[in-house]
Amino acid sequence: MRAIDWVDGAIEIVDQTVLPATLVTRRLTTVDQLIEAIRSLAVRGAPALGVAGAMGVALAAREFTGDAAARDRAVGRIAAARPTAVNLAAGASRAAGWLADGPGAVLAEALALRDEEIAASVAMATRGADLVGELCGGAARVLTHCNTGTLATVTGGTALAVVTELHRRGQLAGVIASETRPLLQGARLTAWELGRAGVPYRMAVDGAGPFLMARGEVDVVLVGADRVCANGDVVNKIGTYAHALGAARAGVPFLVVAPESTMDDETAGGDQVEIEDRGRDEVIAFHGTAVAPPGAGAANPAFDVTPADLVTAVVTDTRVLRPGRIGAGQPADR
Amino acid sequence: MRAIDWVDGAIEIVDQTVLPATLVTRRLTTVDQLIEAIRSLAVRGAPALGVAGAMGVALAAREFTGDAAARDRAVGRIAAARPTAVNLAAGASRAAGWLADGPGAVLAEALALRDEEIAASVAMATRGADLVGELCGGAARVLTHCNTGTLATVTGGTALAVVTELHRRGQLAGVIASETRPLLQGARLTAWELGRAGVPYRMAVDGAGPFLMARGEVDVVLVGADRVCANGDVVNKIGTYAHALGAARAGVPFLVVAPESTMDDETAGGDQVEIEDRGRDEVIAFHGTAVAPPGAGAANPAFDVTPADLVTAVVTDTRVLRPGRIGAGQPADR
Repeated sequence: MRAIDWVDGAIEIVDQTVLPATLVTRRLTTVDQLIEAIRSLAVRGAPALGVAGAMGVALAAREFTGDAAARDRAVGRIAAARPTAVNLAAGASRAAGWLADGPGAVLAEALALRDEEIAASVAMATRGADLVGELCGGAARVLTHCNTGTLATVTGGTALAVVTELHRRGQLAGVIASETRPLLQGARLTAWELGRAGVPYRMAVDGAGPFLMARGEVDVVLVGADRVCANGDVVNKIGTYAHALGAARAGVPFLVVAPESTMDDETAGGDQVEIEDRGRDEVIAFHGTAVAPPGAGAANPAFDVTPADLVTAVVTDTRVLRPGRIGAGQPADR
Repeated sequence: MRAIDWVDGAIEIVDQTVLPATLVTRRLTTVDQLIEAIRSLAVRGAPALGVAGAMGVALAAREFTGDAAARDRAVGRIAAARPTAVNLAAGASRAAGWLADGPGAVLAEALALRDEEIAASVAMATRGADLVGELCGGAARVLTHCNTGTLATVTGGTALAVVTELHRRGQLAGVIASETRPLLQGARLTAWELGRAGVPYRMAVDGAGPFLMARGEVDVVLVGADRVCANGDVVNKIGTYAHALGAARAGVPFLVVAPESTMDDETAGGDQVEIEDRGRDEVIAFHGTAVAPPGAGAANPAFDVTPADLVTAVVTDTRVLRPGRIGAGQPADR
């Protein structure tokens, strides 16, 4: 299964808004359809968004043939459809660099990015599982947040690829998946992926993770990232920072697994990153059912910033980086 | 409004399982009805549970007249209906001390406890608001977790009584109420109480609180407690500890507001307290709608332990205590 691909002249995605109840593939044939899919989180996850951005430019190159101005506006709208993950704008920008060479060249670049992300997942799984083995000794009890599996990438995943690799190696002693309010990517998507892969797991509410660590039930925390800044600050799904605080207090390794495409040496630190606020509706209602009273407002930052000092290591497809030594010109640990 | 009271020979409670959609008063005329109401969280909150325990013994004294053995078994079942809050067993034990004097004496003791809790709420509101004023200077932006208002006590509340007192004084600059998964006491109950009191507020998911503190949006955290141990460890709703970690990192005061009836000098520390696990169903469904796949398990500790060193102060109805100086024989700060 691929969460996003280019099939017969259009983007095809697994619609993540209806999982786990229904597995539906959606075809996106226009830029507007793609932007709607990005905004509604039908496609999500930093690596998948990078591919979506690049393939979106391929769509734009076909849709606006002969109107370069309209085409360029479309590319700009794609790049800005979600602000926090570095991959979306970077993927769009990379593909847009080939616009002068025609739609075929743009598509080839988008497909190259897709293939790179697939290979990156395999590399991260190996490197991440090796590191967990080193840090934890025997079989590890993992806590993970949000969804970082196939659905967040093209196939395989980032942090969840490490989990499934540990399972394959017989080095996984348990998984706690935090539900990840407000949109429940953990409960809906990670649980679904782990179930399909035959990996036993337990769900936990987001507020429970730090206490489960304090109580000694977690050996390592594995999360993904939407952007890793030059100083090592990690921007990721809301709730990541609270889990990092819990890990630091409990002395549990906190590992971030993300491809090189998510490393952002252009952004100095997390305070420079625009944190998307997705409004009140996601918080005060669920699946159309209101929870809070009708008049309730909400603070709904979709992401947070985990300062570099709380991060034990960032595992990419080519390196293992340690906080404070991340960024251009810094030597990798291994 | 009173969350719990004794009316015409029976316990009357506001049924908290159906709020905020419906405001329903339930009459509890038997011990079994009371125990079901406690287990289903129709009545909840440490001070309210203390009153429920005492009034439950008054019910038992009437229901099992002439069968002391059955009566005593009923008292034991009431005391054990929920294990974590100290108040339930303490309230039952206190009322049971009058069983030899007949049902009237037991009821009089239960009503005395009720009246003490009402007075305690008033005292905590004043003392807590004074302390917030001292710590924060001008008007304060408060974050609160779970429900600690009238619904958690008899009337008034603990931490939420401080919030409404700050509002009355014109010293409240904002409230963030965390939703409190899995049972959404924040979104359902705190939001409803704040709305009724005319206090503006915003909801946040439980994972967002620490980041909102890091971003400078919170001046003080106010929570209640189910049990404050002799060493100052605070046992409270799951998610409290994560918020305390966030407050400590951000340098935001973390205040626990709880009556003297919640102070437990008999229990040395949080590691001695039985933490209720309420099972998978609450976690894998959201507000009655299944979220995770049917086979999902869950870790569902209903409470957590906040170590004393993360607590700025514990405000009771008679004292302000500082971590490390809590417990028998320790001088209060004021």
